[in-house]
Amino acid sequence: MPASMRHALALEYDGSSFCGFQSQPSRCGVQDALEDALGAIAGGAVRVVAAGRTDAGVHATSQIVHFDAPVERPTSAWVRGVNAHLTSAAAVLWCIPVRDDFHARFRAVSRHYSYLLLDRPERPGLLHGRVGWHHAPLDIDAMKRAGAQLVGTHDFSSFRAALCQARSPIKTLRALSIAHRGPLVRFDFEADAFLHHMVRNIVGALVDVGTHRRSPEWIDELLVAADRTLGAATFAPDGLYFRGALYDEGFRLPSTLRELPAFI
Amino acid sequence: MPASMRHALALEYDGSSFCGFQSQPSRCGVQDALEDALGAIAGGAVRVVAAGRTDAGVHATSQIVHFDAPVERPTSAWVRGVNAHLTSAAAVLWCIPVRDDFHARFRAVSRHYSYLLLDRPERPGLLHGRVGWHHAPLDIDAMKRAGAQLVGTHDFSSFRAALCQARSPIKTLRALSIAHRGPLVRFDFEADAFLHHMVRNIVGALVDVGTHRRSPEWIDELLVAADRTLGAATFAPDGLYFRGALYDEGFRLPSTLRELPAFI
Repeated sequence: MPASMRHALALEYDGSSFCGFQSQPSRCGVQDALEDALGAIAGGAVRVVAAGRTDAGVHATSQIVHFDAPVERPTSAWVRGVNAHLTSAAAVLWCIPVRDDFHARFRAVSRHYSYLLLDRPERPGLLHGRVGWHHAPLDIDAMKRAGAQLVGTHDFSSFRAALCQARSPIKTLRALSIAHRGPLVRFDFEADAFLHHMVRNIVGALVDVGTHRRSPEWIDELLVAADRTLGAATFAPDGLYFRGALYDEGFRLPSTLRELPAFI
Repeated sequence: MPASMRHALALEYDGSSFCGFQSQPSRCGVQDALEDALGAIAGGAVRVVAAGRTDAGVHATSQIVHFDAPVERPTSAWVRGVNAHLTSAAAVLWCIPVRDDFHARFRAVSRHYSYLLLDRPERPGLLHGRVGWHHAPLDIDAMKRAGAQLVGTHDFSSFRAALCQARSPIKTLRALSIAHRGPLVRFDFEADAFLHHMVRNIVGALVDVGTHRRSPEWIDELLVAADRTLGAATFAPDGLYFRGALYDEGFRLPSTLRELPAFI
């Protein structure tokens, strides 16, 4: 019997169909669906580890996971075969064997999220569950000035959920950009790692700046205060998309980042 | 008691949450949801008439309807009030009083649809229910040459569903354009009116050209044959979006067309 072989895999999913990434007793997690489908191909139990354990309602264009395959199967079995067993709200994009020292979570050197916000008086209908919503026009320039203050290495305690299990609140936000097209505002985030609810709490704070309820400079005060109770409300998970993680090139992975779908 | 006043209204919806536009005994139609919500505001029964009665699974960025309001209400009640009563999969975008001779269906001078097709080996996960899917690369240029032959006034019987109730199979397709960005192919259609399943049957035929199963010239043969049994399979409703209808400027309506959401 051959030793198990480590595999890396990219998965996209519609988070509104799951109770989050993590496995739950009721089997409603993305992890449950993926492990069941991998298990059906492997003919035995398979456990996965993900780059970013997204919350309920949060989507992924490229969740990266690794697993140890207890049996040898052609690559097509781990992609098309697994997709045949997966719910329609998730799809494997690619799967390859990797070195044993690859680890989807601990080897990730950066993680990438986007947040989509519908900025218009009427709540979302067509995009319900796919976007966050704010009912009044936002001052995008003020939000950009505010967001620029968050880039760098900081104590992000003011943007950290009470239940966050990270060892340190100090993270390096490498990039934060804001763009808009029609009524949609898009926020892009890149960091070494994120605290629990960090993106949704930042979006909440930036929206408070965009409405002029707070000044752009308030963001810097929030950072310095390192106190979550001073921050803004956590924005809805609906608009949050995990876009992937980066790893050392030595692991020879296919593209581990994936753009949001462009509706042209 | 005042006479009832005719109103025009634009509605967007996620078709995957409904069994089609038309009212059904089980109340699963978009029409049922909208009439119930309008009725809650009006305090009595309200009936709506739509520009395009979309099938189950078909979406709308701007469905245009009219109704006769049995009571006077401020515009905000017909928008925000109705949205508070509507399921999250639909939202009213605007509503205004119109002349009594306005009719959402019979006064429409053009109708606009788009079809989104995911062209990649892996089935949709994140966009399940939002796009059609083809697993192999399509020859977009061949599809464009084929599509150009459909523009104009033709007997579209080869693209007509057996159950179609239109009086005549002769329609004027004013525009058909095809674009692609990444793995998404977008088809845009404009016509005076469409036969039942006409867009989905055209997409099916164009995909047969895109795979080189058929030549671009086959489309012209299909048109001339005016025989549905010679045509291609009907494509899935998932990728179809009703983008609105145009009316005479004399009705002074707000914009009755709405673009697909751009994920930037």
